[in-house]
Amino acid sequence: MSRQLSDPDPTQTLEAELTWTGERFEPDIRITVERSGRIADVTKISEADPAATRMAGKALLPGFVNAHSHAFQRGLRGRGESFPAGAGSFWSWREAMYELAGGLDPDRFHRLYVETFREMRRAGITTVGEFHYLHHANAGELDFRFDEAVLAAATEAGIRLVLLEAFYRSGAIGQPLAGAQRRFSTPDAESYWRQMDRLAPMLNDRQTLGAVAHSIRAADPGEVAELYAEARRRGLVFHMHIEEQRQEIADCIAEYGATPMALLNDRLDQFDGFTAVHCTHTESTEMSRFLAAGGSVCLCPLTEANLGDGIADIAAVHQAGGTLCLGSDSNARISMVEEMRWAEYVQRLAGEQRGVLRDESGSVARPLLAAATVAGAHSLGLDTGRIEPGHWADFIAIDLTCPTLAGWQPETLLTTLLLGTAEETIAATCVAGEWAG
Amino acid sequence: MSRQLSDPDPTQTLEAELTWTGERFEPDIRITVERSGRIADVTKISEADPAATRMAGKALLPGFVNAHSHAFQRGLRGRGESFPAGAGSFWSWREAMYELAGGLDPDRFHRLYVETFREMRRAGITTVGEFHYLHHANAGELDFRFDEAVLAAATEAGIRLVLLEAFYRSGAIGQPLAGAQRRFSTPDAESYWRQMDRLAPMLNDRQTLGAVAHSIRAADPGEVAELYAEARRRGLVFHMHIEEQRQEIADCIAEYGATPMALLNDRLDQFDGFTAVHCTHTESTEMSRFLAAGGSVCLCPLTEANLGDGIADIAAVHQAGGTLCLGSDSNARISMVEEMRWAEYVQRLAGEQRGVLRDESGSVARPLLAAATVAGAHSLGLDTGRIEPGHWADFIAIDLTCPTLAGWQPETLLTTLLLGTAEETIAATCVAGEWAG
Repeated sequence: MSRQLSDPDPTQTLEAELTWTGERFEPDIRITVERSGRIADVTKISEADPAATRMAGKALLPGFVNAHSHAFQRGLRGRGESFPAGAGSFWSWREAMYELAGGLDPDRFHRLYVETFREMRRAGITTVGEFHYLHHANAGELDFRFDEAVLAAATEAGIRLVLLEAFYRSGAIGQPLAGAQRRFSTPDAESYWRQMDRLAPMLNDRQTLGAVAHSIRAADPGEVAELYAEARRRGLVFHMHIEEQRQEIADCIAEYGATPMALLNDRLDQFDGFTAVHCTHTESTEMSRFLAAGGSVCLCPLTEANLGDGIADIAAVHQAGGTLCLGSDSNARISMVEEMRWAEYVQRLAGEQRGVLRDESGSVARPLLAAATVAGAHSLGLDTGRIEPGHWADFIAIDLTCPTLAGWQPETLLTTLLLGTAEETIAATCVAGEWAG
Repeated sequence: MSRQLSDPDPTQTLEAELTWTGERFEPDIRITVERSGRIADVTKISEADPAATRMAGKALLPGFVNAHSHAFQRGLRGRGESFPAGAGSFWSWREAMYELAGGLDPDRFHRLYVETFREMRRAGITTVGEFHYLHHANAGELDFRFDEAVLAAATEAGIRLVLLEAFYRSGAIGQPLAGAQRRFSTPDAESYWRQMDRLAPMLNDRQTLGAVAHSIRAADPGEVAELYAEARRRGLVFHMHIEEQRQEIADCIAEYGATPMALLNDRLDQFDGFTAVHCTHTESTEMSRFLAAGGSVCLCPLTEANLGDGIADIAAVHQAGGTLCLGSDSNARISMVEEMRWAEYVQRLAGEQRGVLRDESGSVARPLLAAATVAGAHSLGLDTGRIEPGHWADFIAIDLTCPTLAGWQPETLLTTLLLGTAEETIAATCVAGEWAG
């Protein structure tokens, strides 16, 4: 690059060798970024601007949007993976996670978040939706100290953040919080929204809030409906874990006579701004109702595989035209390209065919990139994920000389990136016009 | 490192911060490497040797053994992944692969192999079993020019090679070779063994030969049995593609009245040195017979997922105590750590449980590493994959300061590596005492 990208110019002008313009990589594209950190202009040029930052040997992609993360679970990497008593499950893993959650103090928590968010940026993630339920430093005391630590860590790491603040009242259906769960407590909707009001003035210009009901284990159907209604009244997106595990569905049927998704479909008549995370075992009719009413689905391929959740029928979500986004969830590994390829690969293995998540042109790479960019931005309610005027200047610079890309052509580059590489191709990332890496 | 590892000393002495000794990472281990490239000694030390090469901040692993590769298919990376006419299959992918195979000249082939073998070394692979069937530069002319190019490329890239020279007589059961397949031709066993005899004196001290029947499509059951018998007489390992695709099994039953694996079980009474590659759809009784008679299975998780082959019952192979090794096969992506984690993860998704490929202590990481090292070495008939006296000095140096490893402890390091990282942790690799990277 011919000059420092961090120069405090009122605007910056970028001319990369190739730029992703939504459908393809194109040469001769000039991007102008406003001082505000938004893209002012994206133009096809016939000659180079001598004042522009030339990014020779680089391709620009929109930054990845990680729509579902629990960053503190990065502290479990390499742990909870020994099974001396026989095969494990989500539930035995959850015990290890609770042990971590119960032992973190605010300082260690903050350091862990800074490290994890930095690791995300190195993996091309410029926006994270942090689904945050570890609110209190001591079990049973409502201090919300961890909430502020999340905001501070995101600022330090320079990542765009949607703090998806989780409502968490019960420890299971009809059960009080127990043990480490008491650190997750939001006793009622009133205290929940009071905390949201407390957080709002602390946000910087790269931070927004989203509302969350943790799951049908942590909130009853009436609470979910009320939280969602209030979230939409406030213009906030809404996220919820749905049907990741069969046990949760069985417990829900036993208590309410219906699956979690059926309960939601019966109570809510639209799902704008609603993201259902996982949907591993969601019955197809209920999935169709949810999608038709505007809901999004967030898949977390690496975590769902690590946890042995099962194989979601994502082929059906895709065929129904549903919005599919991606999350790094437990952060046992942070790699959006690996998430993308295995979203498709798991469907290939299950269906014994290739090209399951293809678009009408037959491309698999484009829908996968859309899941990691525009669909994530939609799920989080942000103007990011596209290199278009008015959107945030959130980019990834790909090093086209990287050996794992060798043999690329403009028309094969995206597929080569998503199926053939990992983080070694990511030379730098940019959030709101500020570069790092 | 305190001195150049490439110094032409008669021996070298290595002291890494941690060394994998077969069951765990241990500090204070000194490795002495003979001039021959073999390990002379592995000793627990009480004080540092001032003349040793100190590898501070590094952990030594045995180099990965890639037991099944078709390196030329690296040329397809990013290609054959568009499906304008609807979902694709192994067979439609094969057309794209034949197009590549039909168009390569020896020079381009050689360059592709050098690049691919170098990419393997950067991914920690110190040994490759190259299952090689593209023998001729022109369809129908038996020149075997590509065979020599494989040897030359491996020498250039400094990778240990087992040239698994493939016998390929028919294009499908009872069908002649057609189109690009004519470049694969070995018309009969006599010309096959003649070529093996021609290759033997061309090998360097890091190269050996193995025998191959490409598949039941390319060789009839009698030919397979004869090739295997002759291979064992010569002390060569034997590899064969088995039951990757349902169509191949159906065709085999139609012609011979039995599945490929059943035919082998009926004809051969032992399978020492025999590696069956894939076994995606192998029936469990036949699999048990094969394993009980000494056969190995080679799984290729990334390729089998990319090709939509289906989910092999590897849990059963593991429970039967079968030898399971790993291959990068089509090389659409080259990452042994991703191969390892998805070998386990696919089983977790299919079985909805965690820790499927665990050993008696409950570890998942140890059996996965064994698959990528000792089991691969067994499949290829080599003294590598272990850091033990008498074995080749084939190592990976892991950079312990890599951020994706942050939080490691000696007892969690292997799991962190295999489940949480990719190639960014690999600082250097060593083949027969010679370091690169």
